[in-house]
Amino acid sequence: MDEPGGGGGRRRGRRPGSPNTREAVLAAARSAFATHGYGKATIRSIARDAGVDPSLVIQFFTSKEDLFRASLELIVGPPEDVAASVAAAEGTLGTRMATFYFGLWERSETRPALTAMALSAASEPEARNAIRQLMGRQFIGPIAEHIGAERAARRVPLAATQLLGMAFLRYVVPTDPMASMPVADVIQVVAPVIDRYLTGDLDAVLTAELRPFGAAGPG
Amino acid sequence: MDEPGGGGGRRRGRRPGSPNTREAVLAAARSAFATHGYGKATIRSIARDAGVDPSLVIQFFTSKEDLFRASLELIVGPPEDVAASVAAAEGTLGTRMATFYFGLWERSETRPALTAMALSAASEPEARNAIRQLMGRQFIGPIAEHIGAERAARRVPLAATQLLGMAFLRYVVPTDPMASMPVADVIQVVAPVIDRYLTGDLDAVLTAELRPFGAAGPG
Repeated sequence: MDEPGGGGGRRRGRRPGSPNTREAVLAAARSAFATHGYGKATIRSIARDAGVDPSLVIQFFTSKEDLFRASLELIVGPPEDVAASVAAAEGTLGTRMATFYFGLWERSETRPALTAMALSAASEPEARNAIRQLMGRQFIGPIAEHIGAERAARRVPLAATQLLGMAFLRYVVPTDPMASMPVADVIQVVAPVIDRYLTGDLDAVLTAELRPFGAAGPG
Repeated sequence: MDEPGGGGGRRRGRRPGSPNTREAVLAAARSAFATHGYGKATIRSIARDAGVDPSLVIQFFTSKEDLFRASLELIVGPPEDVAASVAAAEGTLGTRMATFYFGLWERSETRPALTAMALSAASEPEARNAIRQLMGRQFIGPIAEHIGAERAARRVPLAATQLLGMAFLRYVVPTDPMASMPVADVIQVVAPVIDRYLTGDLDAVLTAELRPFGAAGPG
């Protein structure tokens, strides 16, 4: 998307500091993280790909972790999208959450980035922090409106174990039967599991209270 | 474990080609894969750690992939262990399978190796092949005796999505509430999910037949 008018043109290309610069940096970051993973992508190389000075990248995003978080948000979309999806009329809460989640993975333009980011989370503590914040903002928040904030902070992560494990064996390490199932079947297979975690009665199986979502111990 | 008698001792240490050599190589391999991951562990370095010639490693294990598979089997134990665990009297099949699986992860001496191997599977096709073979032999086989071979090949992988996702967020990237739950609670939380995948009625939610376990597409 070009800026209409272009701003007078002392130099060709994007103006430093314009909203388009931010977009260009984010696009370069998303591509760099998807291609190289968190550890090997650098602010310097992202700035070069975006055609800007590294200092400008830091002006918009204070750190590589912040840039990674913004790239993830670009892929997952704003929390309002999750909220709209879980507020939609059809199906149980679990069905709607699964529909939103697998919708992200099914798009061929977002899948490689999600795969790279999931792998980064496993090896890079900063990427892990960014994904934890994303989980809080994009998923626990919107679902809290439906089941309560306290409950969401304890139960959405349980739902994440099922969603993540399915995504891993369907998309990251494609394995049958998961890889060849129609996505509608995937959603219907996991939906009751998600519903149980989000709203089911777990009292009979738990001996200890569920701690709210958060990092446990170092890392 | 020393060989009693030692074999006459032209040289100190283990005899080339003895069962103890194989054990030493396996122990070194397991440690190397756990520390460096599949990609960076080499036959040469494993041979050095075991105090043997690299050609001896190849004599026992035809390739790095084969060595990795044998290391995994060393950690997971023989199929008979899974079979004995799922044949045990207490609890549903899902409870027993979860008990065996989380039992592996709970041991502090096997957890780092399992973590490294799980991460290797994501990035290394050879490690992935080895884990697929392990899955077939150590899990699908023993459970087939309880629910039938056809059904096990289609359903055990679905159960794996839940077990793997929980292990990932409990052990690999420790996240609450999963990381702080007593393991007994973890088992009881996932057991009904595993039971549903192994023996539940999925006809109502599936539009397509479940393909049997296997790699899907390239990689």
